[in-house]
Amino acid sequence: MQLLRSLCQIAAPSGNEAPLTDFVLRYVQQHQATWQVQPTIVAGEELQDCIILVFGTPRTAVFAHLDSIGFTVRYGRQLVRIGGPDVATGYPLVGHDTQGPIECTLEVDKNTGALRYRYHREIERGTELTFRCDFRETATTVQSCTLDNRLGVWNALRLCETLQDGIVAFSCWEEHGGGSVAYLAKHIYETYDVRQALISDITWVTEGVHAGQGCVISLRDSLIPRRSYVERIRHIARQAGIPHQLEVESGGGSDAKELQHGAQPWDWCFVGAPEDNVHTPHEIVDKRDIASMLALYQALMREL
Amino acid sequence: MQLLRSLCQIAAPSGNEAPLTDFVLRYVQQHQATWQVQPTIVAGEELQDCIILVFGTPRTAVFAHLDSIGFTVRYGRQLVRIGGPDVATGYPLVGHDTQGPIECTLEVDKNTGALRYRYHREIERGTELTFRCDFRETATTVQSCTLDNRLGVWNALRLCETLQDGIVAFSCWEEHGGGSVAYLAKHIYETYDVRQALISDITWVTEGVHAGQGCVISLRDSLIPRRSYVERIRHIARQAGIPHQLEVESGGGSDAKELQHGAQPWDWCFVGAPEDNVHTPHEIVDKRDIASMLALYQALMREL
Amino acid sequence: MQLLRSLCQIAAPSGNEAPLTDFVLRYVQQHQATWQVQPTIVAGEELQDCIILVFGTPRTAVFAHLDSIGFTVRYGRQLVRIGGPDVATGYPLVGHDTQGPIECTLEVDKNTGALRYRYHREIERGTELTFRCDFRETATTVQSCTLDNRLGVWNALRLCETLQDGIVAFSCWEEHGGGSVAYLAKHIYETYDVRQALISDITWVTEGVHAGQGCVISLRDSLIPRRSYVERIRHIARQAGIPHQLEVESGGGSDAKELQHGAQPWDWCFVGAPEDNVHTPHEIVDKRDIASMLALYQALMREL
Repeated sequence: MQLLRSLCQIAAPSGNEAPLTDFVLRYVQQHQATWQVQPTIVAGEELQDCIILVFGTPRTAVFAHLDSIGFTVRYGRQLVRIGGPDVATGYPLVGHDTQGPIECTLEVDKNTGALRYRYHREIERGTELTFRCDFRETATTVQSCTLDNRLGVWNALRLCETLQDGIVAFSCWEEHGGGSVAYLAKHIYETYDVRQALISDITWVTEGVHAGQGCVISLRDSLIPRRSYVERIRHIARQAGIPHQLEVESGGGSDAKELQHGAQPWDWCFVGAPEDNVHTPHEIVDKRDIASMLALYQALMREL
Repeated sequence: MQLLRSLCQIAAPSGNEAPLTDFVLRYVQQHQATWQVQPTIVAGEELQDCIILVFGTPRTAVFAHLDSIGFTVRYGRQLVRIGGPDVATGYPLVGHDTQGPIECTLEVDKNTGALRYRYHREIERGTELTFRCDFRETATTVQSCTLDNRLGVWNALRLCETLQDGIVAFSCWEEHGGGSVAYLAKHIYETYDVRQALISDITWVTEGVHAGQGCVISLRDSLIPRRSYVERIRHIARQAGIPHQLEVESGGGSDAKELQHGAQPWDWCFVGAPEDNVHTPHEIVDKRDIASMLALYQALMREL
Repeated sequence: MQLLRSLCQIAAPSGNEAPLTDFVLRYVQQHQATWQVQPTIVAGEELQDCIILVFGTPRTAVFAHLDSIGFTVRYGRQLVRIGGPDVATGYPLVGHDTQGPIECTLEVDKNTGALRYRYHREIERGTELTFRCDFRETATTVQSCTLDNRLGVWNALRLCETLQDGIVAFSCWEEHGGGSVAYLAKHIYETYDVRQALISDITWVTEGVHAGQGCVISLRDSLIPRRSYVERIRHIARQAGIPHQLEVESGGGSDAKELQHGAQPWDWCFVGAPEDNVHTPHEIVDKRDIASMLALYQALMREL
């Protein structure tokens, strides 16, 4: 879990993913020699801060978003949300402005819900703050801020070790309205004729989805994927004997929104471990669900 | 109305349109020999469950969505909506899971509004349920669930009988966030240089739109079409002497949303009969409005 | 300010921008001989009512929306909004239908908030009404309806006088859901390989943004631009010594929404003067902010 720990400690809120992009690019360059297949790496200004890794002759693309939730400093001590972070007075926040690194805390006004930071000085307008990472590992769980979606990124990087044919795409802005998957999807479809997608992201523990019972295959969230594609995925999971759970939600979304609404006929399915304490500094995931997530991706990328 | 009755009896909620796609493809293959022009049929995995029919040298495309509203079985006996169905305790629902066909009823919790089904056994997670079809025809009306949009599909198929030049496109996911018109629109524009659209769909009886007074030309709903195009359509309707009504709404939407927001300069207009009891099992349309809808489409496809 | 006055007096609500398109095209044809570089003019049905001006070898594109807010006549004396106009009983409205020109007033129902017009006759269904223009200029301010975004259009046209390399694009539907920037952005990116954008539009005076303190560089609104691009813009503004202010908002949007969500990797930033009395007949802007807006655009188009 050293890789996951490193990923969780990098601040990369939506719009400022570049530090994590740099980390992932360095990681790929340092480790790809040990992978079964060496990918073509597509990155640079034409993809902003996204990365595409192409292995062999791809049939399916995995999307994992790099960005996290956070806060932007507004006027005075006001904060506005990046994405949908949970808020509670006392949550520790970190960032930096031209005066140096910052460690402060979140304050939620009891009456208005307005968000402020508590700090010994005023922080510069527009500064981004993210939850301070307190990475905790036990025999059975990992816990940290931003497991959503550093665990999805971790899963994608571990998948690379054995991937023969497939695409791994790292996207931006997922937590805050999207904005990169539309062009990633267009590029991948037009260049590689690939239109099958798996969304490597983290979902919720709910009354119907329980920690430790396996990776989630989502039948729907706010959007509904094409039924025939989801049935193929369920079939592969059953055949492979990998523990998994089925999710049915009316809300929530993912990078799949841009696949669904883009101008290519993508089939997509959200496949990921469930977490509790969503979008807090204390997101927690069961290690069995992490293991089944990686195993399921390995099977799906072989069989789809 | 036998064709309409058949269309209404096929379950095809958003995301699982394949049964209706198969029906329409079979219908086209069986009947096209009697049509004035035989279309090129574009279908298959590259269009997911959509169909494009190309007649002669097209200038205008008709979009009719195949999918309907419905419900997805969640956890326990919970249901979540597909699209925006009306809900009332007692509405009859149908579906099937691996244990066989299902006929159950909807229950709406009086206090919370939560949706459940009442049935003798638990239905499998993720199963889709739709309104049970009770098709009723009188001398002046047709009544059924899902006239929205099986009547729009019926109109498109009847239009095919005499169509010389034009495109008829059958789309998916309209009731639940869209997701196919973006690529249909791109394909049609890039392949045939067509960027004029008519939306063959069903709208609402309101204080300003009355049953029996003719097909509706919508001047706007939640979106506003380009004025100059709508004026051309109004002019053709007046010249042709076809009964019609003008609609002005602030809400509602259609496949036109994806045309408006896509990366091609589509002109579009919603043209369709009004119905009462919208999104219930008892949608009702006046036959005169069906007749004027088909007549108006015939005129518009000639003149635009 | 004669040009600005003329721009403000043309009615062009979302969906019916054609009168302003015609004005801008005529203005360009009449004045381009005096400009430092003569642009290629791209317009016509393939761009609906939009215009693209291409100067030299472009690296950056300026987007200025032509359309304004307004109202559509519904049934009886009801009105529905085009975009998000402020409403108050007595606001003067203008328009025309087949019976002739119209000058009427807005009425807001105190209890329901419902909108109606007060006029001596019924106005035809679907007629568009806009605020009557009362253009007021002092030594330090301009005031009128629709400074949002006629001032952005004015800025773009004045920028043309000295522009060496760049694109100026005039868009439609910005106030009401968008619908043209997706195809403008695709055309510009694919034809000129340009993916840097500036949004020439008007923002709000708030507790953190003050009239007279310079053009606003927006660090975010409802969407978050890519940080590295915004930092380049801030650097150029500081180096050029042009007065400017930084904005951080959680709401609001612009043509940038379509750039962010489109299938090209656009970098974008909203750069524009702030106004008070937003979306009323009495929008007011400080002349110093107009001056710094134009100066900043001149510097940015040189340096980016």
